[in-house]
Amino acid sequence: MKPDTPVSSASDAIACALDPRSIAIIGASEHPHKVGGRPIAYLRRFGYAGRIYPINPNRDVVQGLRTYRDLTALPEAPDLAIIATPGAAVMAAIDACATAGVKVALVMASGFGETAFDESIAAEHEMVARARAAGMRIIGPNCQGLANFATGTIASFSTILGEVDAADGPVAIISQSGVMSAVPYGLLRARGIGVRHAHSTGNEADVTLSELAVAVVKDPAVRLLLLYIESIRDPDTLARAAQLARARDLPIVAVKSGRTARGQAAARSHTGALASEDRVVDAFFRHHGICRVHDVHELVAGVDLYLKEWRPRGRGLVAVSNSGATCVMAADLAEEVKLQLPALSADTIAKLAARLPRFATVTNPIDLTAALLTDSALFGEVLSAVAADPATDLLFVGMSVAGEGYDVDAFARDAGRLARDRDTPLVVSAPQESVAATFRSAGVPTFGNQSEAIRLLAQLVEHTHLMQRTAPKAALPLDVQVPCGSSRFLSEFESLAFLSRHGLPTVPCRLCHTEEEARLAAIELGLPVAVKACAAALPHKSDHGLVIVGLESDAAIARAFALLTDRSARLHVAADGILVAPMIKARRELMLGARVDPTFGPLVLIGDGGKYVEALGDFTVLMPPFDVDEVRRAILALRIAPILTGVRGESAIDLEPLANAAIRLGQIITAAAPTIAAIDINPVMVGSTGELLIVDALIERAQTD
Amino acid sequence: MKPDTPVSSASDAIACALDPRSIAIIGASEHPHKVGGRPIAYLRRFGYAGRIYPINPNRDVVQGLRTYRDLTALPEAPDLAIIATPGAAVMAAIDACATAGVKVALVMASGFGETAFDESIAAEHEMVARARAAGMRIIGPNCQGLANFATGTIASFSTILGEVDAADGPVAIISQSGVMSAVPYGLLRARGIGVRHAHSTGNEADVTLSELAVAVVKDPAVRLLLLYIESIRDPDTLARAAQLARARDLPIVAVKSGRTARGQAAARSHTGALASEDRVVDAFFRHHGICRVHDVHELVAGVDLYLKEWRPRGRGLVAVSNSGATCVMAADLAEEVKLQLPALSADTIAKLAARLPRFATVTNPIDLTAALLTDSALFGEVLSAVAADPATDLLFVGMSVAGEGYDVDAFARDAGRLARDRDTPLVVSAPQESVAATFRSAGVPTFGNQSEAIRLLAQLVEHTHLMQRTAPKAALPLDVQVPCGSSRFLSEFESLAFLSRHGLPTVPCRLCHTEEEARLAAIELGLPVAVKACAAALPHKSDHGLVIVGLESDAAIARAFALLTDRSARLHVAADGILVAPMIKARRELMLGARVDPTFGPLVLIGDGGKYVEALGDFTVLMPPFDVDEVRRAILALRIAPILTGVRGESAIDLEPLANAAIRLGQIITAAAPTIAAIDINPVMVGSTGELLIVDALIERAQTD
Repeated sequence: MKPDTPVSSASDAIACALDPRSIAIIGASEHPHKVGGRPIAYLRRFGYAGRIYPINPNRDVVQGLRTYRDLTALPEAPDLAIIATPGAAVMAAIDACATAGVKVALVMASGFGETAFDESIAAEHEMVARARAAGMRIIGPNCQGLANFATGTIASFSTILGEVDAADGPVAIISQSGVMSAVPYGLLRARGIGVRHAHSTGNEADVTLSELAVAVVKDPAVRLLLLYIESIRDPDTLARAAQLARARDLPIVAVKSGRTARGQAAARSHTGALASEDRVVDAFFRHHGICRVHDVHELVAGVDLYLKEWRPRGRGLVAVSNSGATCVMAADLAEEVKLQLPALSADTIAKLAARLPRFATVTNPIDLTAALLTDSALFGEVLSAVAADPATDLLFVGMSVAGEGYDVDAFARDAGRLARDRDTPLVVSAPQESVAATFRSAGVPTFGNQSEAIRLLAQLVEHTHLMQRTAPKAALPLDVQVPCGSSRFLSEFESLAFLSRHGLPTVPCRLCHTEEEARLAAIELGLPVAVKACAAALPHKSDHGLVIVGLESDAAIARAFALLTDRSARLHVAADGILVAPMIKARRELMLGARVDPTFGPLVLIGDGGKYVEALGDFTVLMPPFDVDEVRRAILALRIAPILTGVRGESAIDLEPLANAAIRLGQIITAAAPTIAAIDINPVMVGSTGELLIVDALIERAQTD
Repeated sequence: MKPDTPVSSASDAIACALDPRSIAIIGASEHPHKVGGRPIAYLRRFGYAGRIYPINPNRDVVQGLRTYRDLTALPEAPDLAIIATPGAAVMAAIDACATAGVKVALVMASGFGETAFDESIAAEHEMVARARAAGMRIIGPNCQGLANFATGTIASFSTILGEVDAADGPVAIISQSGVMSAVPYGLLRARGIGVRHAHSTGNEADVTLSELAVAVVKDPAVRLLLLYIESIRDPDTLARAAQLARARDLPIVAVKSGRTARGQAAARSHTGALASEDRVVDAFFRHHGICRVHDVHELVAGVDLYLKEWRPRGRGLVAVSNSGATCVMAADLAEEVKLQLPALSADTIAKLAARLPRFATVTNPIDLTAALLTDSALFGEVLSAVAADPATDLLFVGMSVAGEGYDVDAFARDAGRLARDRDTPLVVSAPQESVAATFRSAGVPTFGNQSEAIRLLAQLVEHTHLMQRTAPKAALPLDVQVPCGSSRFLSEFESLAFLSRHGLPTVPCRLCHTEEEARLAAIELGLPVAVKACAAALPHKSDHGLVIVGLESDAAIARAFALLTDRSARLHVAADGILVAPMIKARRELMLGARVDPTFGPLVLIGDGGKYVEALGDFTVLMPPFDVDEVRRAILALRIAPILTGVRGESAIDLEPLANAAIRLGQIITAAAPTIAAIDINPVMVGSTGELLIVDALIERAQTD
């Protein structure tokens, strides 16, 4: 119990909701399976030690507890009030709570902001306004509730809590959906894994999942946090939770649904979630070291592995199986999930060759063959030898078949010893449940599905990398000078000049107003040249035939100048002039971009260039600040990466200049965020040694209205 | 029992192995857990009704059966002999079997062709040679055996058969790996699904998985065939099995491992499997209506769904759940697996609106909300209304949470009725095992993982399409005339001329021997032109600077002619001349190709063009003959498809000319297979209305050595 201090800050209110000294249940029901009855039954069943105040004007006793007609009848202002009344009665209950000095009100009823009805949405806003005026926080509405098994604070009507036995433990679940807190809770408890927190936040009219996450990651008993998210309303708060979690090496795994247009449409109708471009969400999670997975099954799949708290050093997987076919499939999957299958050291090979049958494979993956049937010690000896090899970062054991004749107990003991004594992640796959159970009892993360086991190792490697990444310090803010003006876009010339001024390599070019200027510029810059009509009002020049490339002669330049002048005039556009620039050759035309996302703030895009950036989608989003290594990884994950790393006898490109340009662009958009909405650099020409030159750029001002 | 006729054909021998009148076990053991003891124990336990002859020179009785000192002591030649001796004794046993007139010998010992040792590989060849000389077939070596639960012919030492209860049923499993017949067998039996066949073929020194597949698909009780394959040695036989299966609407699902370079390396060391480019394997399976999956988990995942024998009419998925979050994730996944979420008819919407709470969603996916808790009839009524909607091809029900208060029995009954009465595929996901079990008992395919449930619906749609595809008749063979010559490649001019002669649209071009000819050709063809040095000895011209493009004047052509002549001379290559061709504009430069694969025969490739075809990998392999619809699907699955279907205001391209060119190319490579190894067409220029023109081509002759 916390000392009796007033709730003065947001985090105090959250802490209070998770560990209240007293709880009122407004709409308390005698029936333990009604919304107003379940929380009372749960609070008592799960050992809540604080004071429980059922509120029901029609009863003196509910579930054996003294019951009050209203909040004014209570001997104290309860820390937490559970509003379990139907929707129509919620507003009055909020008012009563606000008046009584309740610190947090949890609203269970649905039919508010998640609907399509204006009056329901307005009621939700009103509810929050009234609570705020009184300094009270609201959880919900449309919320199944909170469950903290450390304190027995089970302020929830979730049926799953009554279906399975509870056990306090190292896992915390926070979900915007009640069902999606119940599903992982049920799956984990069915596997015997202890869960301390299982909270849902519903419509988040006030208190968000992110706020609860900040509170939960401070709980030292929590060793894994699982999130189900439909909409990130307060990314800064979630980022703070992630930062606190990383500071204590606590992994966070999250489902963020609404990945697709159809999913987002469904999410809007479900909880009124805002849509975000999904790659932006990916960038946010990566930046903050949160591992994003696709569904609730994946959310819980790796829990055993996470709870071992292994932090792999690299991607080198050694696979061992008593089935050659399992070895083949393990090798396939390792390649697909970008794990390496390192060669074993000569020493290890010699040890294995001495132990394995003459015809067995001593390469990695290692086929133990049916010899395991007659030689039970083989398993542990091979595993120990392999685990001691310096190339082994990860160990996979495929116990694909076992039964009469196999000493599974001994195998499990040997694997369990390794899993305990060494810091090398070890997973077993065993399709026979009895075999899997034996390995699990020995403390080894064990899966029925070998692909899942290997995928989870790859996920752990990737997640460890994200968690251990030291975010670069944000550089000193740039002093960014955006040209004055009211046009939505800067012209190409202004855009290039802006980027050049802020340290990015742009093509030398001249803005010419006469044919003669253009001809002189071409001579100075070197033939062949490209000419373009330059006007802030015409951001998409090539769509209007305002770009002519590959001009090799004075005459051609003169003709092009006249043509562009004429075309601009026909479009009734006052061109700033005609831009002349030399033609640049490149290994590849790439794209760099920057955006200010309304939810997530400044972002940098890097990818393949050209006309079809959106349609082909070969780009990655990064969240600044980031370092060279992070850009390099992003580039190497592009589909066109092989072109940059060298194929068909071409040399590998030095990616550092490109990475540095992306970093600089991140600094620019961060500094310019209030005035610039987007920067499109397409193409940036990347030469065969990595030199780069921006040949076209378009900067969009932020709309101020 | 079959009448007593001599084994005269391959299929008779296979039939005999699956249903022998008598079985000898060479190396018979008293111990029911030894390799030579298990088959005897299994034959008796699973009710084999034929004659069992244990062979062991040292015992009179084995496992209670009269035992013979050798084959000569038997009263008859056994149909099947199980050779359960160690490797060193196998050859003598083969000889004895051959002499005794055994029809099929099944060799269990390993240490033959799957090893890296020349003498072991040679022994396997010798074994087959001796058997062939006597008209005997060999199954194995390195083979766990056959198991036919219809006849009790369990000629296997697989431990799994002793671990789980057997039940004859509709599923057949054939695997090149013993373990990978055991794993799906065990998984299916654990789910209560009956399995009739569980065969493994080991090294396939003689009898192959494909041959067994031909026999098994003729078994009318088999309703689903599952395959685990590491190497397809006889694609024609597997194609025949697939054809027989499709003729009776019997689905085949296959794992083909060795998908990656590392996996293939592991497969070679496991069973000596040959490597095939994995997309070729994909093309083979698609062509023959076999559904390829990634691992054994996926192999068995859809069995319940397959056994319902639903054949969906389209891709329209309606999702229903009592969880809004499940609806969101269902919509995400539907979009990702390319299922549609059709709008419901006004009639259905009216029905649902009348039944659902005011704030519930009546769009698809349909959120039943917590109303289900108080209104159990809602479930069945909504499901019936939705199933009756003409837009509903597929139904997904996410029962994400249920417990006290939910009438799961009623829901399961309602779903079961629909699953029985309607031909609309219906799957349920229920993470609570007790809930899932209730739905399964009602005959509804039910999954713990909602993503898996939806993915399997998509797989069923795709598989049904492949199975129902009517393979176009092969056109009359083309009369293909390949120019005589001994060079490995045809020159570009010869290649283009060859393709043009056989009906493909090639760029008009001229082979010129003087500068004047080149200038005249350019005038005739129209400026600008490209010029290239044309020589069979220089197939990769651009790597040698022998291509110059965009020439706009007489002078430029003259300079280019001189330059190319000079460069050819420096390379000591006798050019056939200088090729002059007009420059062609296109929406996109694509690639068409044809190959004769040593295992799978003629193939057609279609994809994005340019220099980096291999590195970017945006191409699909098709197996001729195929029709326009199949090429269209292949093109629409390319990453560059949006460019062809129209983005950024561009019109959609008519894909039929391209599809017809691919079809023609398939006819050409099929007819020319003995003399042509490969045809590379890169690029083929595709214009904005679909018109196309081949501007470069290279034909490679088949090597005759």
